[in-house]
Amino acid sequence: MTQPCIICVAITGSLPTKADNPAVPITVVEQVESTQEAFEAGATIAHCHVRDDEGKPTSDPERFAALKEGIEKHCPGMIVQLSTGGRSGAGKTRGGMLSLRPDMASLSVGSNNFPTRVYENPPDLVEWLASEMKTYGIKPEIEAFDLSHIYQAKAMADRGELVGTPYVQFVMGVKNSMPAVKRVFDYYVETVKVLFGEDAPWCAAGIGRHQIELNDWAAAAGGHLRT
Amino acid sequence: MTQPCIICVAITGSLPTKADNPAVPITVVEQVESTQEAFEAGATIAHCHVRDDEGKPTSDPERFAALKEGIEKHCPGMIVQLSTGGRSGAGKTRGGMLSLRPDMASLSVGSNNFPTRVYENPPDLVEWLASEMKTYGIKPEIEAFDLSHIYQAKAMADRGELVGTPYVQFVMGVKNSMPAVKRVFDYYVETVKVLFGEDAPWCAAGIGRHQIELNDWAAAAGGHLRT
Ligand SMILES: [Zn+2]
Ligand SMILES: [Zn+2]
Ligand SMILES: [Zn+2]
Ligand SMILES: [Zn+2]
Repeated sequence: MTQPCIICVAITGSLPTKADNPAVPITVVEQVESTQEAFEAGATIAHCHVRDDEGKPTSDPERFAALKEGIEKHCPGMIVQLSTGGRSGAGKTRGGMLSLRPDMASLSVGSNNFPTRVYENPPDLVEWLASEMKTYGIKPEIEAFDLSHIYQAKAMADRGELVGTPYVQFVMGVKNSMPAVKRVFDYYVETVKVLFGEDAPWCAAGIGRHQIELNDWAAAAGGHLRT
Repeated sequence: MTQPCIICVAITGSLPTKADNPAVPITVVEQVESTQEAFEAGATIAHCHVRDDEGKPTSDPERFAALKEGIEKHCPGMIVQLSTGGRSGAGKTRGGMLSLRPDMASLSVGSNNFPTRVYENPPDLVEWLASEMKTYGIKPEIEAFDLSHIYQAKAMADRGELVGTPYVQFVMGVKNSMPAVKRVFDYYVETVKVLFGEDAPWCAAGIGRHQIELNDWAAAAGGHLRT
């Protein structure tokens, strides 16, 4: 229980806008500033989304390059994790930034519903994103929106498609997908241990009002925190 | 443990062709014959898909009407369950047969991956299918391809969107979705009991080579069988 605590800070995310919350960092300069504050407060992983000039989510590799450079300069040693999530682009554009060779990248390995639409991660795209990550030596963070996604990570790892032991993030509290339920959270943790070993790292992200709840559960169960 | 055993027979399914297996019943006449054999052997629910003249899966209400009529005539008292699954049609065509007022209809409540594509069940379509079933007094069989689908059924039931206590079918062994894993099966059963009560009915379907395995597990755990 004296493991150093890894704190993963999500910079901006793909959803909030300045209209929702004027404090949300949108430009790369604002994002680097906010990451640096989190880094100085102890965060070790920066989970990064970027926005275009209108504030909309994008997968633009140039934006990601600028953000990565800024974080590396101002937060030496911090682990940079770039998002390949589907809110920021479609198809292979979602992986256009992987040639930047970040330390980590997020990887969705299955499909599920979002509040108003299907979050589509077709098998061939998942395979391609994983193979790009392998090419560039990038460790994936598996985004587990449902239980089968943890098993899918195991199947991919067994086939040698992933770099290192899968690092799973449980995403809970998404409407029309997995709710934030403690017994499922406990089962997720148990599943990671069964599939990847007692010491396999994992983290948990609660969406919206579930964030604090999930952080409490994760802290108590030995997971990494996400803020 | 002396509950009468409900056996659910899947007529034809949406995938096999005469080329795969010449014994697969494709025409409505063949389907009714094969259902009658199962009925006489003790099956109580007929889970029905239909094919067009070329043997391709279809959601054609006229085909479903002919099959339903044939089963009702030759298998008096058998529960007719029509499939609204996405292999047979897209969008609202999937529910075009619901006005036939079958006893039951299958209902997918979330999205997931299939071996080569995304099985898309967008939230607005799920809601529409459920509301049609409610309009026509049809009991849904919830197709649970993943754990969150059982929770989604609970959320829908709590909102009054489903007729009766949800009857959940676990679908396991689909590539790129949930594998046939005993510990997950056990957790599914536990989840149904936690959410819908100790006596809530459920059944399990193992895809392909997993069918016998899943039937063994279901028989031992008190679920309904699927053949
Ligand atoms: Zn994380
Ligand atoms: Zn993200
Ligand atoms: Zn069934
Ligand atoms: Zn079916």
